[in-house]
Amino acid sequence: MRALIIHCHPEPASFNAALTDVSVRTLRDLDHAVEISDLYAEAFDPVERPGHFRPRKDRTFFSALAEQRHASETEALPAEIHREIERLERADLVIFQFPLWWHGQPAMLKGWFDRVLVNGGLYTSAMRYDRGYFCGKRAICSVTTGAPASAFGPGARGGDIDHLLWPLHYSLHYVGFSVLPPFLAFGIQGHGYAYQSETGFASRLDALRAQWAGRLKQLGELPALRFPGWDDWDDAGAAKPDFATGI
Amino acid sequence: MRALIIHCHPEPASFNAALTDVSVRTLRDLDHAVEISDLYAEAFDPVERPGHFRPRKDRTFFSALAEQRHASETEALPAEIHREIERLERADLVIFQFPLWWHGQPAMLKGWFDRVLVNGGLYTSAMRYDRGYFCGKRAICSVTTGAPASAFGPGARGGDIDHLLWPLHYSLHYVGFSVLPPFLAFGIQGHGYAYQSETGFASRLDALRAQWAGRLKQLGELPALRFPGWDDWDDAGAAKPDFATGI
Repeated sequence: MRALIIHCHPEPASFNAALTDVSVRTLRDLDHAVEISDLYAEAFDPVERPGHFRPRKDRTFFSALAEQRHASETEALPAEIHREIERLERADLVIFQFPLWWHGQPAMLKGWFDRVLVNGGLYTSAMRYDRGYFCGKRAICSVTTGAPASAFGPGARGGDIDHLLWPLHYSLHYVGFSVLPPFLAFGIQGHGYAYQSETGFASRLDALRAQWAGRLKQLGELPALRFPGWDDWDDAGAAKPDFATGI
Repeated sequence: MRALIIHCHPEPASFNAALTDVSVRTLRDLDHAVEISDLYAEAFDPVERPGHFRPRKDRTFFSALAEQRHASETEALPAEIHREIERLERADLVIFQFPLWWHGQPAMLKGWFDRVLVNGGLYTSAMRYDRGYFCGKRAICSVTTGAPASAFGPGARGGDIDHLLWPLHYSLHYVGFSVLPPFLAFGIQGHGYAYQSETGFASRLDALRAQWAGRLKQLGELPALRFPGWDDWDDAGAAKPDFATGI
């Protein structure tokens, strides 16, 4: 198996970096090949904009979707997007390692979706969801949060974590990934931050390392999250009357 | 009344730009003052990272929250963050104008949340939600989507739009805003994109302009969305047993 880790954290000594190290070691011990997209270290530019497309399909009006499609068709995607897509092509499993910032992924990682999952190349109106480009590949989010687990439930202070991650998970489903249940490390505060002592940092990290390594070894047995697919929708994209997942 | 428009679109001739023009004209006709943060035009940097903080509170370990708090306390926030906060301070109403990209706001706008809503300055553990810094101010999202309205409901192909916007709305609630129901312009494709003719673009735009102007004139009468608050949570942040909003 080949794994790709999309790592998104600005601090090399962070909990997130430690969890990525665990991923690398655990997966290599299992004889899997591992690649890393270290978005901050590689200075990935998360902003989709006209300057990324040369030559432009239309110089008078910038449509991100039209330019992505044109660049895909003419093999003129920016080098870093081409690189990310090649990494995805090689991977059987993609791990997204990031902290929850403002109820979602950091801008750096949001922009990875905006720019890398290109229209025309990785999806079309017909090639999406359970007919998506990456069908057969699996993805999992490994997420740290500042607030404790008790604050993440329906009606709770931090919101329902399944709900908060649903848009990101659905984006992965959109391009065909089977999305595994996330690994959640609650109550993580960078050391140096007021709430966390050095000792607390180290012991919490040891516990999390073991938990995450354990999860990685069991990934093959985990059932994927359930999302609606083409059989659930009418031609207008609405849910058929007999379909009711709630979200 | 004073309004601030956080405008996030890379194309000056886009539907989004047209809707922002409508906001400016309509609100000024009503004798309101209007400011615009045009994130793309101002080349806002959405990536929170160590380089934004000089001097650093801790040079050996980067914690975004700790550095934000320190920079707030020492009045050392980056100039563009200081400017955005001053704009927010002046506003009674904040309009977020953006396209839905990958089930959320574009990275550019996500990074506005990551960087502008600074720890220490605009929130603390005690100054959040219905005790938030911006209590008394209102916010509204005006959002364009590529897919048609039929594709955005529970179980539908594009997802439940209320669900998709919930994380962003909850971030606004977190800092105290009263969040008004969003204005949704479905089925918008930039001209130049395959699905949209020039004629279709113009007539759809005319209809939307009128709808959005009408909504802006009624903002004072709109009840805010309901979110849980401090009375709904126990000390650990969990929802009290008698509280059940579902999300």
